Amino acid sequence: MDQSLREACGIVGVYNVPNAAEAIYLGLHALQHRGQESAGIVVCNGHTMHSRKGMGLLSRVFGPQDLAHLRGHTGVGHVRYSTTGASKPQNTQPLVLDYSAGLVAVAHNGNLINARALRRECEARGSIFQTSTDSEVIVHLMAQPDHADRPDSLAHCLRRHVRGAYALLVQRTDRIVAARDPQGFRPLSLGRLEGGYMVASETCAFDQAGAEFLREVEPGELVTVDETGLHSERFVPEREVRPAMCIFEFIYFARPDSVLLGESVHTVRKRLGVQLAREHPADADVVVAVPDSGNSAAIGYAQESGLPYDRGLIRNHYVGRTFLNPVPGERSRQARLKHNVVQDVVRGKRVVLVDDSLIRGTTLQSLVQFVRAAGATQVHLRISCPPNRYACYYGIDFPTREELIAAHRSREEIEALLSLDSLRYLSLEGLQAAAPGAGGFCTACFGGDYPVPPADLMEDKHRLEAHGAVTEETVAGT
Amino acid sequence: MDQSLREACGIVGVYNVPNAAEAIYLGLHALQHRGQESAGIVVCNGHTMHSRKGMGLLSRVFGPQDLAHLRGHTGVGHVRYSTTGASKPQNTQPLVLDYSAGLVAVAHNGNLINARALRRECEARGSIFQTSTDSEVIVHLMAQPDHADRPDSLAHCLRRHVRGAYALLVQRTDRIVAARDPQGFRPLSLGRLEGGYMVASETCAFDQAGAEFLREVEPGELVTVDETGLHSERFVPEREVRPAMCIFEFIYFARPDSVLLGESVHTVRKRLGVQLAREHPADADVVVAVPDSGNSAAIGYAQESGLPYDRGLIRNHYVGRTFLNPVPGERSRQARLKHNVVQDVVRGKRVVLVDDSLIRGTTLQSLVQFVRAAGATQVHLRISCPPNRYACYYGIDFPTREELIAAHRSREEIEALLSLDSLRYLSLEGLQAAAPGAGGFCTACFGGDYPVPPADLMEDKHRLEAHGAVTEETVAGT
Amino acid sequence: MDQSLREACGIVGVYNVPNAAEAIYLGLHALQHRGQESAGIVVCNGHTMHSRKGMGLLSRVFGPQDLAHLRGHTGVGHVRYSTTGASKPQNTQPLVLDYSAGLVAVAHNGNLINARALRRECEARGSIFQTSTDSEVIVHLMAQPDHADRPDSLAHCLRRHVRGAYALLVQRTDRIVAARDPQGFRPLSLGRLEGGYMVASETCAFDQAGAEFLREVEPGELVTVDETGLHSERFVPEREVRPAMCIFEFIYFARPDSVLLGESVHTVRKRLGVQLAREHPADADVVVAVPDSGNSAAIGYAQESGLPYDRGLIRNHYVGRTFLNPVPGERSRQARLKHNVVQDVVRGKRVVLVDDSLIRGTTLQSLVQFVRAAGATQVHLRISCPPNRYACYYGIDFPTREELIAAHRSREEIEALLSLDSLRYLSLEGLQAAAPGAGGFCTACFGGDYPVPPADLMEDKHRLEAHGAVTEETVAGT
Amino acid sequence: MDQSLREACGIVGVYNVPNAAEAIYLGLHALQHRGQESAGIVVCNGHTMHSRKGMGLLSRVFGPQDLAHLRGHTGVGHVRYSTTGASKPQNTQPLVLDYSAGLVAVAHNGNLINARALRRECEARGSIFQTSTDSEVIVHLMAQPDHADRPDSLAHCLRRHVRGAYALLVQRTDRIVAARDPQGFRPLSLGRLEGGYMVASETCAFDQAGAEFLREVEPGELVTVDETGLHSERFVPEREVRPAMCIFEFIYFARPDSVLLGESVHTVRKRLGVQLAREHPADADVVVAVPDSGNSAAIGYAQESGLPYDRGLIRNHYVGRTFLNPVPGERSRQARLKHNVVQDVVRGKRVVLVDDSLIRGTTLQSLVQFVRAAGATQVHLRISCPPNRYACYYGIDFPTREELIAAHRSREEIEALLSLDSLRYLSLEGLQAAAPGAGGFCTACFGGDYPVPPADLMEDKHRLEAHGAVTEETVAGT
Repeated sequence: MDQSLREACGIVGVYNVPNAAEAIYLGLHALQHRGQESAGIVVCNGHTMHSRKGMGLLSRVFGPQDLAHLRGHTGVGHVRYSTTGASKPQNTQPLVLDYSAGLVAVAHNGNLINARALRRECEARGSIFQTSTDSEVIVHLMAQPDHADRPDSLAHCLRRHVRGAYALLVQRTDRIVAARDPQGFRPLSLGRLEGGYMVASETCAFDQAGAEFLREVEPGELVTVDETGLHSERFVPEREVRPAMCIFEFIYFARPDSVLLGESVHTVRKRLGVQLAREHPADADVVVAVPDSGNSAAIGYAQESGLPYDRGLIRNHYVGRTFLNPVPGERSRQARLKHNVVQDVVRGKRVVLVDDSLIRGTTLQSLVQFVRAAGATQVHLRISCPPNRYACYYGIDFPTREELIAAHRSREEIEALLSLDSLRYLSLEGLQAAAPGAGGFCTACFGGDYPVPPADLMEDKHRLEAHGAVTEETVAGT
Repeated sequence: MDQSLREACGIVGVYNVPNAAEAIYLGLHALQHRGQESAGIVVCNGHTMHSRKGMGLLSRVFGPQDLAHLRGHTGVGHVRYSTTGASKPQNTQPLVLDYSAGLVAVAHNGNLINARALRRECEARGSIFQTSTDSEVIVHLMAQPDHADRPDSLAHCLRRHVRGAYALLVQRTDRIVAARDPQGFRPLSLGRLEGGYMVASETCAFDQAGAEFLREVEPGELVTVDETGLHSERFVPEREVRPAMCIFEFIYFARPDSVLLGESVHTVRKRLGVQLAREHPADADVVVAVPDSGNSAAIGYAQESGLPYDRGLIRNHYVGRTFLNPVPGERSRQARLKHNVVQDVVRGKRVVLVDDSLIRGTTLQSLVQFVRAAGATQVHLRISCPPNRYACYYGIDFPTREELIAAHRSREEIEALLSLDSLRYLSLEGLQAAAPGAGGFCTACFGGDYPVPPADLMEDKHRLEAHGAVTEETVAGT
Repeated sequence: MDQSLREACGIVGVYNVPNAAEAIYLGLHALQHRGQESAGIVVCNGHTMHSRKGMGLLSRVFGPQDLAHLRGHTGVGHVRYSTTGASKPQNTQPLVLDYSAGLVAVAHNGNLINARALRRECEARGSIFQTSTDSEVIVHLMAQPDHADRPDSLAHCLRRHVRGAYALLVQRTDRIVAARDPQGFRPLSLGRLEGGYMVASETCAFDQAGAEFLREVEPGELVTVDETGLHSERFVPEREVRPAMCIFEFIYFARPDSVLLGESVHTVRKRLGVQLAREHPADADVVVAVPDSGNSAAIGYAQESGLPYDRGLIRNHYVGRTFLNPVPGERSRQARLKHNVVQDVVRGKRVVLVDDSLIRGTTLQSLVQFVRAAGATQVHLRISCPPNRYACYYGIDFPTREELIAAHRSREEIEALLSLDSLRYLSLEGLQAAAPGAGGFCTACFGGDYPVPPADLMEDKHRLEAHGAVTEETVAGT
Repeated sequence: MDQSLREACGIVGVYNVPNAAEAIYLGLHALQHRGQESAGIVVCNGHTMHSRKGMGLLSRVFGPQDLAHLRGHTGVGHVRYSTTGASKPQNTQPLVLDYSAGLVAVAHNGNLINARALRRECEARGSIFQTSTDSEVIVHLMAQPDHADRPDSLAHCLRRHVRGAYALLVQRTDRIVAARDPQGFRPLSLGRLEGGYMVASETCAFDQAGAEFLREVEPGELVTVDETGLHSERFVPEREVRPAMCIFEFIYFARPDSVLLGESVHTVRKRLGVQLAREHPADADVVVAVPDSGNSAAIGYAQESGLPYDRGLIRNHYVGRTFLNPVPGERSRQARLKHNVVQDVVRGKRVVLVDDSLIRGTTLQSLVQFVRAAGATQVHLRISCPPNRYACYYGIDFPTREELIAAHRSREEIEALLSLDSLRYLSLEGLQAAAPGAGGFCTACFGGDYPVPPADLMEDKHRLEAHGAVTEETVAGT
C-alpha cells in the first residue's frame, strides 16, 4: 500500500458498563488505524449526555484527566478522517443533536450516496443543518413531523430514504441502536462486556477492552439494546439484503489481529500471499515486504515460494498519517522519511517486493529506487490484489480514477514507470477464492461493478453545503 | 452602580465599506462595555462569509493578524454576555446559518419573551437547534416553508411571531437589514461611512470608526441596505409602535460620550446629579463619586450643591468583568481589588458618596466601610435613580427580585445595613424630567409596569434547551 | 501624560505570613500599574522554592488554581516591563538562581548604571549569565569566591560594586532582605501583615493585602527579616546617602491612593494643579482633564481657578498598555481607541486641558484635534510639571532626547505643532514647593542634573549581552 | 525488549550546507528513536545563533513554518530523554551559552561520571548553573579564566577534567567540533553533505539527509570543521584510548538500517538470532517475534532452526513512549494497549517467542499471558543477549539493579514468574562472537565490569542541583 487509501471511520458503542468512557476509549484506541484526524466520545447517564471531541489522534484529544469527566454507563465513540478538511472541528463525531424526540448522538462509518438530495428535501421543509456531514441527514429525517413520533423512526428512515454504506450507532438517553446497511459494506460486530454490551467496527476493539465477541451485526439488521435486553430486527425485506462487504477490509483496512467472517485478517492476507506466489512465482533471492501493509502477504509468499523472508525495508513509526513534514523537497526525500533500506539485505540480491495494493504508485516508485540504489540487482513487485481501476463511493477516501496508476496504464507501462523487472497482481478469482465465507463482496474498485448505483455522488462526492461557502473559526480566548 | 447589572450585547453592521472587518472591529471596540464575555465578526464579499468568534474580550479574540483574513465589504459584529454560561462557545454571535434561502448571519441585542414557545413550535415541525440562544429562533422561523420564499420573511416573522426586545442585524450575501422592536427597548443608530453605511448600538462606535451619525433607527422600523441604497419600512402598524426605550441606558449602560435622543449621555447624567442635589441636599464637606459609574452625576451634584468634588475612591482598571480572582476571601477583600480610598480626601470629612444606582448593595457596603475606615466622619449616599425593585425581561442581565436590595427593604433598613448616615434616591418624576425627549421610556425595573407582558419567561428566563442537558467540549488537538 | 513613560517594575515581599503567594498576589495586583508585560511569584517554605512566572498581566499568568501550588510562608513577587523586548520570557523576574551559597530569588526595581562593566568583570572570571537583566549581575557578584562566604555579601557588593537605582528584594531559604540605593531613587515601604512582614514599592499594596504601614525603607538602608526579627543596617556611610527620589513618582508613576513621604499622592498632584493655576491662569469656560493621568491636577486647577471641572474626554479602559491594535492606520485613529470626546462639554467652549506631563506629544496632538473637531473654540494646555528635556537612566522606560518634544523646541513651536491657543508648564520651583518633605528629589529629566553619573550606559542602555546575538524560542509541545 | 531501556540522546551537526536547519531536522527525524521527550535545533549564520527547542517529539516541536526561521549554514541538533523529568524545558538541548569566549551551543549524548564533583568545583569559583544537565558542566569548565583563552580549551577540559561517556558536538560561530570519549561508549559518525560536512549518532541520519558516510569519529578523537576544512586530533595519549562501545547499540538501541563498525545493525541482530538458535533450539511449531525489538533476531532464529516465522503479535504504533494512558488499570490491560495477539497464528501451537533482551520482565509477563490465552500450548522465550544484571552509568536510562528481573533471580524462578515452558539467553561468548570488529565492547550491564569506575555517581545518578530544590513554571500568557 503506498499510503494512498484512508478508511473513513471507526465506531464503538457500549451499553450498561460500569465506566462507559473508559471502555469506549480502549475500543477507539484499537481502531485508531481507521481514522486519525479527529476523535470523540459521548456518554450518557440516562439523562444527561457528556461529549468531548477534537481534531487529531485519540491521545491528543483525551488527556489523562479527561475521561473522568465523562460519567455514564452508556455511550458511543468515533475516530475519523475529516474528508471535508482537517480544519472543520464542527464536523467531528459523534454528533449530538437535540430535537423534538429528545437528545440523540450519532456515530457513523460509511457514506450515504443520496445524502445531498435528502438534505435538500429537509431544507425545503425548513431544516437548518449544522455540519456538512451526511450523518446529520439521518437525524433531520428522523426529526420530520411524520417520523418523529413513530417508535421505529430510525428503521423507517433507513428503509425508505437512506441509500449507501453505513455502519451506524445511535445513542439515546435510554438505549443504544446499531444498524448496518443491507449490503453490509462496512463491518460491525457485537460483544458482551462486564454484564453489558459492546459494539465495534472490528473485534480488536473487544480484545482491547476485555469484551467477548458474540457475532457480527448482519447486513440489513438493526440491533437495539435497552434495559429490557438486546432486540434484533430486519429493517428491510430479506430479498433486499445482498451482502457485499468491502473486500479491501481483508486486503488492507482491518487490523491483522481482527477476526472478520470467522478468520483472523492476518491469516487471510497470508493466504493471499500464498495464492500470489502460486500465480506469479519469481526467480529471486529474497522476499521483502513493504512494511507494514505488505508484511502478512510477504510471509505467505515467502513460505509458498521457499525464498527467504527478510527485513529489507524499515519503517519509521514516528511518521503518522497526520505528520506534516516541515522539509519541502522532491518526492523521494519525502518517502525516505517513512522508509529506509537495510543495505546488507538487498545488496547484490534479486528482490521480490510484496505489497497489498498499488494505488497511486508514488511511494512504491521511491522505494524501488531506494532498493536499487542500495545494490539490488533485480526488483520484482508482487501485489496481493488485482489492479485498482475504479473509485469507491462507500466510505473510503479513495483517489479519483485519474489518480489511480492502473486506471489507464498497462502493466508494462507501470513496470517501466516504476523501474521494475516485473510487476504481477493477484487475480480477482484468486482473491475471492482466498477470502473466507461464501463470497458476497464488493469488488467495485477493481471492476467498476457497483452494488448500489452511486447516484448524485458523481457531481459532489464530499460536500453537502447547500449555498455560498462559509469559513468559521472559533477561538478559545478566556 | 455596584457592579451588578450587565448589558447583554452590542452590535455593529456595515455595508459597502472598503474594509468591513476593520470598521466593525473599531465599532465593537467602542461598544466593549456592552458585552465582555464573547466577541465575533462575520464579513461577506457578496458570496462567501468569513466568521471569527470566541470567548473573552475583543482583544483576546482578534489578534493583529486575524482581521486580514476576514475579507469583505459588508458584515456584522457582536459583543455579548453569554447569559447562559461563559463556557458555551457555540452560543457566541453573530450566528451564521445556512438554510433553504441561503446563508444568513444574525447579531442580536435584546431578549425575546416568547422564544421558548416559538422554539417548541419549530421543533414540532422538525427543526433542530444548534444553540440555546433566542436569536436562533428568528432564523428557524424564517426557514419555515411558508416563510422562506416570502421576500419579506423577516418583517413577517417579526410582525406576526416575535415578541420582546430586539435590536437586530441580519446579514445576507447581498444586503444587510437592521430592525428595532416596536417599543425600541434597545438603542440602534444609523450612520454613513466612506460611501457606505454603518449601524451600531451607540454613536460612540461611529466616532471610533470615523462614521457620521445620520439618525436613530425608529421603534418598529426595518431598514434594508443593498446595492440600490437604503430602504425603510414599518413592519408593524403605526398604532402598535409605543416607544419605551430602556431608561437605564441613560442611567448606566450607554457610554457617556454617546449621543442618544439628541443629547450626550454624560450631559443627561450630570443633569440627574443636579436634580438629585435639588431633591436631596446634604450637609457635608466633599462630594465623592463611585468611579466610574457615579462620575457624571457626582459632578452635577457637586456643581448644584456648591460642595467640592474630589477623587476619594480610585478604581483599579485591571479588574475587568471577566477577572477571576485567585484569592478567595471575604467580600470586602474582593471589593478592595477594584476600589481603594484616598485617605487625605475623606479623613475627618463628611462625605457625600454619589452613584448611579443601588442594585444588590454588596459592593457599596464594602466601599462605605473603606471610607469610614479611612476616617470619614459621616457618609451620605445619593443615588441618581429611584430604587430598583423589579426584574428586567428585555435583555439586561438583571438580578431576581430577591437579590435587589430595595425590593423588600425600607430606606431606613438599607441605611442601617450599609452603615450610612443617610441614603436618598432621585425620584421617578425627577428622572423622567431630566431625561431628554418627549418621554416614552421603559421604567419597569422601578415600578413593575412592563410595556410587553413577560409571558412564559417567568418559568424559564435564560434556558431554551428542550430536553436533557448536554455538556460539550471541543478541543483543538492538531 | 501622553502614554509615553513606563515605570519599569513593582516589587513585593512577605516574610512569615500564613499564605505568602496570596499576599504577594494581592500586593502585585495593586502594583500592576508599575509593570504590565510580565509577572512572577516565588515562595519558599524554608527549604524548597516554588516559582511561577510568565508574560502578560498578573491575571493572565495566575489563574484561579495556580496560587494553591505555591506553598510557603515567605516569598517575593515582581511585575515588570521587559524593557529588552516582550519576547524574552527568560528575563522575567523574580530570578531564581542556585549558587555555592544556596538558592536565591531576586526582585529588582531600578537600573544599575554600571551593569555592563560588572558583567564583563564576572565573565572574565568565568561566569556565564542566563539573562540580559542587570539584576542577575548582583547575584553573580555575590557568587564570587571572595564574596560568597561573607555573611554580608549583599551589603558588601552594593557598597563596593553596584552603582545606580535599585529597590531590591532578595529571598533566601531562611530570610528576606530589602535594600534601597543611597539616593533612594525608587520607593520602597515596610509594613506588618498577620504577625509577619510585608515590603512593597507602594503603600497601596498594603491596603490591598490588609497590611499595616510601618515606615519607608531609607535610602542606603538594608533591612533583613529572619526568624529573629527585623534588622536594619546602613550599607554605606551616612555621608554617601544623598536622597534623590524620582519626583516623577509624585507627578505620574505612583498610584494616587498611595502614601509617599507622608502624603497621599493624589493630594500632592492636586496641589500641583493649584500651583499651576496660580502660575498660569487661563481665560476659559471649562477645565477638562486628560484621563486618568491629569485627573488630580485638573481638580486642583479647577478649584483654584474657579472654573468648572467637567468630563470632556472619556477613556476606554479596555485599551491596556499591552493592547495590540489589529487595525492599522493614522495616529489619530489610534488615539481614538483610547479617548473620545463628550461633545456637549466642549462644543462652543474655551477649554483648559490639564495633563501631568508632555513627553512625546503625539497623543496630545490627537486629543487637541478631537476637542477642536467637537466644537471647542479655544484649547489651552496646562502641564503640571516642567518641560521634559533629558533622558532617565534610573529605571524608567524614558524616550531618548530626540523623542522628547520639548528637548529642542520652544514653547511657541510646540503650541503651533499641537494647534494650541496656549501651552504652559508648572515651574521647577513650583513643583519642588508643592512636593512634600524637605526636598531631595531627582529632577534630572527636567534639567539634566544627574545625581549619579550615568557612566557606560550611554553606549548601551538596555542590552547586556556580551557577544553575537541569540534568538531562542522554547515551545511547550507535550 | 520489554520497553524498559531508553537511550538518552541522538545528536546531529552540520557545517557549511545550504540549509542547516533542514538537514539537521532530517537527521534528527532518523534518530527520533534515541530520544523522544524533547528536541532542539540551533543554527548559526557565522554571527547570530537561532535556537528552537521544546518538549515532545520532533514533529511537535517543529511545525511546517518553524524551520524557515532558523537561517544558517551550520548548526547542531538534539533529541533526548529528559532523564531528570519531563517537566524541565530548561534542560532541553542543545544548550546555548554566552561566555567570555563567545557564544557556544552544545549537544551531548552520554553521561559524565564526575559531573557532580566538577560542578561543585565550578560553583566554588563563582559559577552559577542554569540547568541540572551534565552537559553544562563542560562549558563552565571552558569558561574558567585559566581555560577560556586557550585555543584548545575543549580538548584540554576533556583530557584533564571530564570522565565518562560522551559523544559531543560543540557549535561556535566560526566552527563545529565533534568529540568522542576515549572508550567510544556512544557512536558518532562523520559524513559529507552538499559540499559541507555532517556528523550524527547513527548513519541512518545520513541516508535521511542525503549525506555520504565517510567514517566513524574514533574514540578519543576530536574533529574540528571550520573554513579551512576538517582537522582531526587525539585529545588523549594513544595508550589511554581503550575502545569499549556499548554493545547494546547492536542489541537494541541503534536502528536496524544503521551501519556500525562496518555492518548493518539488522545483519548483526539476525546473526544473534542464528547463534541463539544454535545454542538453544526449541521443539516448537512457530517462531514469533516481540515486535519490533525482536524482529531481526527472530528471523535469524527461524532461519537457523527451520521453524516457520510468523506474525503472532501485532504492535499498535499509536502508542509512543510518551503516550499517557488515561485508562488506569491492571498491568496486562496496559500491555494490551501496545500489543495484541493474532489468534490463528498461536492457537494450538508450541510458540517460540524471541526478544532482544529481558529487563524488568513486566511487559513480557503480559505478552506470554496473551499468547497462552489465545490458545498456545507451549511458550518458549529466547533472548538474544545474556541476562542483564547490572546498572549502566554511561548514558542509558537503565533501571536500578533492584528492578532488573535477572539481578537476583535464577532462570528457573523467572520461568515460573513468567509462566514459560522454557527461557534461554544468548551466551556472552556467543554475543561477542556475533558482534563485528575486533571486540572492545562495554558489557558491564551483563557482568558488572565497568570500563570507567562510576565514582560519585552511585550517590546521585541524575541530579546535579547543589541545594534545596526549586520548581519553576514559566507560562506563555500574552
